[in-house]
Amino acid sequence: MPAAPLPELPFPGERLRPRRIGIDTGGEHVAYLPLGSSACHGEGFGPHSRLQVSVGSRGLMATLAIMHGDALAPDEVGLSESAWLRLQPAAHEQVALAHPPSVESLSSVRAKLYGRTLADAEIRAIVMDIAAQRYSNLELATFIAACSNDHLALDEVVALTGAMVDSGARLHWPGAVIVDKHCVGGLPGNRTTPIVVAICTALGLVMPKTSSRAITSPAGTADTMAMLAPVDLDLARMRRTVERTGGCIVWGGAINLAPVDDTLIRIERALDIDSPGQLVASILSKKIAAGSNRVVIDVPVGPTAKVREARHARTLERMLRAVAGRFGLELTVLRTDGLQPVGRGVGPALEARDVLAVLQDRPQQPRDLRERALALAAAVIEAGGLAAGTDALALARECLDSGRAWRQFQAICEAQGGMRAPGVAPYRHPVAAVRDSRVEAIDNRRLAQAAKLAGAPLSPLAGLVIDVRVGDPVTTGQPLFTLHAQSPGELAYAMEYVSRHPDIVRLGTGP
Amino acid sequence: MPAAPLPELPFPGERLRPRRIGIDTGGEHVAYLPLGSSACHGEGFGPHSRLQVSVGSRGLMATLAIMHGDALAPDEVGLSESAWLRLQPAAHEQVALAHPPSVESLSSVRAKLYGRTLADAEIRAIVMDIAAQRYSNLELATFIAACSNDHLALDEVVALTGAMVDSGARLHWPGAVIVDKHCVGGLPGNRTTPIVVAICTALGLVMPKTSSRAITSPAGTADTMAMLAPVDLDLARMRRTVERTGGCIVWGGAINLAPVDDTLIRIERALDIDSPGQLVASILSKKIAAGSNRVVIDVPVGPTAKVREARHARTLERMLRAVAGRFGLELTVLRTDGLQPVGRGVGPALEARDVLAVLQDRPQQPRDLRERALALAAAVIEAGGLAAGTDALALARECLDSGRAWRQFQAICEAQGGMRAPGVAPYRHPVAAVRDSRVEAIDNRRLAQAAKLAGAPLSPLAGLVIDVRVGDPVTTGQPLFTLHAQSPGELAYAMEYVSRHPDIVRLGTGP
Repeated sequence: MPAAPLPELPFPGERLRPRRIGIDTGGEHVAYLPLGSSACHGEGFGPHSRLQVSVGSRGLMATLAIMHGDALAPDEVGLSESAWLRLQPAAHEQVALAHPPSVESLSSVRAKLYGRTLADAEIRAIVMDIAAQRYSNLELATFIAACSNDHLALDEVVALTGAMVDSGARLHWPGAVIVDKHCVGGLPGNRTTPIVVAICTALGLVMPKTSSRAITSPAGTADTMAMLAPVDLDLARMRRTVERTGGCIVWGGAINLAPVDDTLIRIERALDIDSPGQLVASILSKKIAAGSNRVVIDVPVGPTAKVREARHARTLERMLRAVAGRFGLELTVLRTDGLQPVGRGVGPALEARDVLAVLQDRPQQPRDLRERALALAAAVIEAGGLAAGTDALALARECLDSGRAWRQFQAICEAQGGMRAPGVAPYRHPVAAVRDSRVEAIDNRRLAQAAKLAGAPLSPLAGLVIDVRVGDPVTTGQPLFTLHAQSPGELAYAMEYVSRHPDIVRLGTGP
Repeated sequence: MPAAPLPELPFPGERLRPRRIGIDTGGEHVAYLPLGSSACHGEGFGPHSRLQVSVGSRGLMATLAIMHGDALAPDEVGLSESAWLRLQPAAHEQVALAHPPSVESLSSVRAKLYGRTLADAEIRAIVMDIAAQRYSNLELATFIAACSNDHLALDEVVALTGAMVDSGARLHWPGAVIVDKHCVGGLPGNRTTPIVVAICTALGLVMPKTSSRAITSPAGTADTMAMLAPVDLDLARMRRTVERTGGCIVWGGAINLAPVDDTLIRIERALDIDSPGQLVASILSKKIAAGSNRVVIDVPVGPTAKVREARHARTLERMLRAVAGRFGLELTVLRTDGLQPVGRGVGPALEARDVLAVLQDRPQQPRDLRERALALAAAVIEAGGLAAGTDALALARECLDSGRAWRQFQAICEAQGGMRAPGVAPYRHPVAAVRDSRVEAIDNRRLAQAAKLAGAPLSPLAGLVIDVRVGDPVTTGQPLFTLHAQSPGELAYAMEYVSRHPDIVRLGTGP
């Protein structure tokens, strides 16, 4: 039984003069009202309140902060940089504030937190509201927490994947076979992508690779590739690159593929949280949106990798396959050795140097990075239907050894806007073995943490170079790894962490 | 095997001139740096970065925001209002920025999110870091999410309770028996506390009641009591009140009891999340810190109350008893009828009016509120050892009927700083029955939501008055409830919600 219909009340929505405050809060729109403003009194707004902010027909949801002092006049409202750029108030245009429409999908987030399985429509509603920037950062953190661990069921991951695809652009490429590869991460320095793309596209496959920036690692492929060529290409430039070379290695964020994934990643990074369900949705939504249909996934497994045990890899693989199947994606999953870092460098520029060393077939190139890249390239070649088994591997090896892959990589860099050389960090400090012994283990997580504390990936030259592998004999004073930083402060910070965790590179008790 | 000892590097920590930005972000300390500042470049800080901000020997952790434009000079750092008030920089004092010590307890938060049971020391470390304001709002949201639902084991709740007690002051009162009561909430208008305190202290029991503000409801006891007398008493004033009258009804936040609880509540309120484990820790930590040892807990159970089913009440009761037992607290748990709202008013001032009507024995007083208060007072009287069973109830009734409780309440209000009268909201709108029928059900949650959208508790006169009870016959046009608001905008907002949810008061299909 409905209650009596309500009379229409005009919504009062006070008019205020906008003022650009210039504050960048890292993603969340913020509106600033003077303390004691009538909007606060009249509308009951307080700190953390969510507001609907409108200029003409443009509107957005913002979080309120209160401005003490006289920085704002009583009839002014301050706008954070992101809100200002989105609303673009013209001279003399006024701002209307109102209570925002209540975000109904938040009740689904709470239900998820309380253990309920969400329906497809509920997850779509959440993703649509996130895409429309209706979630505050606190609400995003709650959604991420609610989905963490194994809290998402398969159907929920499928729904999340589909909704994230639909939240942005979807690319289409000429040709029936579009290949792609992805590594679930967790292994410092495992920067095979630029090498794999160079090999496979040199052999004629179409591989329009979009990569992400680091979530919780010291470098993502996009961070590393940005050291060698522009990666923030728009769609038109990405298309021209792929038309000319058959491939590209660009940052997915600039071409609006599954943009909700980027919003979630921004908060996940601040919280240092990953979850299998969101990981699968994140990986596959980007691949589907990017228009690929044959995808190779590298899953490193090791005691301190992101995936620690074979059974976790199996679970993840099952989920990846099940979700991919629903979207008509052919998947090859390669479980790889995740015992220790790959290559020597950890951090954007340092990893870029390893990539160049392999492509240029330099004497000091990291052999493990080379062999992993070849194995993955072979899997992509097989998925792409060019060759199978050892023939595929031989094809990849010939392409790399002959210099074809290196020429192709240069062509891709040129097409993306011009190749460049990574710089070198000015502050470095070696961490040395305290006695003659043998390397027993390397802690990937703590090593990555040390690289992050040294400044990676925000300081792109920062990170570390690791000179030893598990099983290597070492002598007293021999450098185990060298921290690289762009400032003495970051170097000191990483050194402090390393001194508290002397077992990042664990030495045996015997000689 | 430890790595070689590291040489001590002087930490560079740039010196900057502090500027008071005046922004109140609702709890989180924020530091503002100009875009392109050398601190951002040199130290690798970006939005969401956490910083250590120091002035002389005073320091705090803050979240970084970037300031575009020329509001800040290159050698300035802006401080949010809370950071400014905490650091109190004197003229010519400079600010040093540094990377904060890494907050190790955050790894326990992540472990909790991934399903691990935390040890006592881990939970203590989390609470200590929260008390020291080392958690960002995003990190607090994650901790709350990690503890939500039934994710906390009993030992974790005990650890959380103990750690929260130790995070603040702990009161001691003369006398062996200190009584207290608490309602787990979820029932709009269930404002028995002021009545119970008046009755029990009039009878000679010592009941130093500290209450909280609303978490997710339209009013907490402290919000309601603030309509009748000052509640933000410091400890000295609280002591004088209890010495003079045997009791008080004050806001716990002003006397620093379990302050971490208040920090968590601030975020829980923004997220609209409650969890049993945190609920138990929140309730009992406040009681233990307040120095009480005989506590009556009111658990309303009903389909739209906070506790929906008897089995949930049993779970909560078991957890309350088990945790209370570990702290030597004698507990009486009263499971009460949570079918529908209590009293007529919902919202701080409107509930205060109901409280006064009962205490003053007015003809139109809400009988249900009166009877619930008497039952709870009887339980407190029994817990306090004054009388048992029907004798306790008779004692309570006589105290209320004779006007003794009302005189005692006035004395408490005077001792707290002076009694005052609640105002009336200027904007009101009745929601009427659409036809002759009978009230079949009342949705407590949606009714509370309507009161909140009308502005409660931030707008203290706002809320609603409900005129019907389940089973009541109603005629077409008869008001079911009346929305109260302090602004037309809030009224319109609540009305819009009510029109979308016509079943807040559900009428039967027959006449």
